[in-house]
Amino acid sequence: MSTDPPTDQRHLLVIGIGAGDPDHLTLAAVKALRRTDVFFLVGKGPEKTALTDLRRRILAEHATGPHRVVEVDDPWRDRTREDGAGYTTAVHDWRRRRAEVYERLVREELAPGQTGAFLVWGDPALYDSTLGILDGITAGGTLAFDVEVVPGISSVSALAARHRITLNQVGRPVHITPGRRLADACLAGDGDVVVMLDAQEAYRRVTGDDVWIYWGAYLGTPDELLLSGPLPQVAARISELRAEARERHGWIMDTYLLRIAEGGGEAPGP
Amino acid sequence: MSTDPPTDQRHLLVIGIGAGDPDHLTLAAVKALRRTDVFFLVGKGPEKTALTDLRRRILAEHATGPHRVVEVDDPWRDRTREDGAGYTTAVHDWRRRRAEVYERLVREELAPGQTGAFLVWGDPALYDSTLGILDGITAGGTLAFDVEVVPGISSVSALAARHRITLNQVGRPVHITPGRRLADACLAGDGDVVVMLDAQEAYRRVTGDDVWIYWGAYLGTPDELLLSGPLPQVAARISELRAEARERHGWIMDTYLLRIAEGGGEAPGP
Repeated sequence: MSTDPPTDQRHLLVIGIGAGDPDHLTLAAVKALRRTDVFFLVGKGPEKTALTDLRRRILAEHATGPHRVVEVDDPWRDRTREDGAGYTTAVHDWRRRRAEVYERLVREELAPGQTGAFLVWGDPALYDSTLGILDGITAGGTLAFDVEVVPGISSVSALAARHRITLNQVGRPVHITPGRRLADACLAGDGDVVVMLDAQEAYRRVTGDDVWIYWGAYLGTPDELLLSGPLPQVAARISELRAEARERHGWIMDTYLLRIAEGGGEAPGP
Repeated sequence: MSTDPPTDQRHLLVIGIGAGDPDHLTLAAVKALRRTDVFFLVGKGPEKTALTDLRRRILAEHATGPHRVVEVDDPWRDRTREDGAGYTTAVHDWRRRRAEVYERLVREELAPGQTGAFLVWGDPALYDSTLGILDGITAGGTLAFDVEVVPGISSVSALAARHRITLNQVGRPVHITPGRRLADACLAGDGDVVVMLDAQEAYRRVTGDDVWIYWGAYLGTPDELLLSGPLPQVAARISELRAEARERHGWIMDTYLLRIAEGGGEAPGP
């Protein structure tokens, strides 16, 4: 359904590569990898190493066309400013600096008519900044390109699959939230809650004997960890596992679903 | 990471095949299709025809191992009972009848040690009954099997990709809800709302000049329809498109995102 870009325009692909398992790649992603001229790999620190390793493995297997790989460090992100009310401002500030890096990359490394690609872990639609940054460049008006998005398997999808559960209960909503916003995320109301980006272990502040947690870390990778059960019984064990894993790997990426049993009190299946 | 099933146990795969585009299939799904002995195709009516056509096309291309296809009609679903308070009861009742059909299928068509597969449109984790039905059979205790889930690209992911948007705004939650629960889904609060299964056009009852809608139908298929804009300006046009398309195809499957511009009033990107 996508049309070929005009030959004098730069074309950017934002490709979701899945949650960590190379087999999460879709056939559309494989086709996109094959027609990419320049891959932009952006990252930093130990997390970057793991991400870049996965990307390199994917490129080695699927980027069968002639291509170049351009690696660049992420702009420094001041996470001390991302507490409380300053969060959005701090993130926007970091995004603006990242946009400058991306704009320079695209302008200098990608010729008009060529196709560049950003490989995004998970799904570009969920808690990833790439599309917002590209919008920011477009809004600046000094560099023209078109954008095509290839959806990917998110860590949320991978979590549900590995636990063999649905994200929603019959006829009910599901809420996806950053950990820092869990308190506002309608847990007291109706529906289940999926938490991403939870450095503060927000689940430890959730109470209620009828809450179940389905937790997963490094989903889809050989380091994958899974644990589920009544939250009051397994919360401490999850904290231990998180601390051990972060110590061992130097970083952690995890996500979890909190479910209140239908009718209350009753253990949800399976 | 999955282990081989014991040879005397039936093995069931629940495979997400994506939102309509055959290229939404993941490499993991392709591998799963290749090791399936028996495919169970369940459906009914014009929607069944479209779904079954996609599944047949996928099988023709990827199910390269020896296999059988077993087709069965869905149990009749009394949608008149699915209004208001009776919804959950009606759905559970329909699921129980579907569980009887599935249990008979697995028992009669799949020998111990064989692998059967259900092909689920989108992602088995979102508003699909297959996993719940299999749980129900397991709970009955009269038929043993293990279950492996292959996550798929949901229509939510496909919607975001086609509109080149993220589902969430920076640091905010996103809510996914059936149309009939939209009023409860925190739209007045914080975060964006994705609506699935909205036969009642719930978006028509949403007010607010600062609400944008990103709508899509038959996502990923040649019949795909996309429309976005300020809700008050495009709601009527979406209703027209829905009516025309339902008339033409005999069924419709659509989904949409409602977004309140950050800061209010300001048009969200892109």
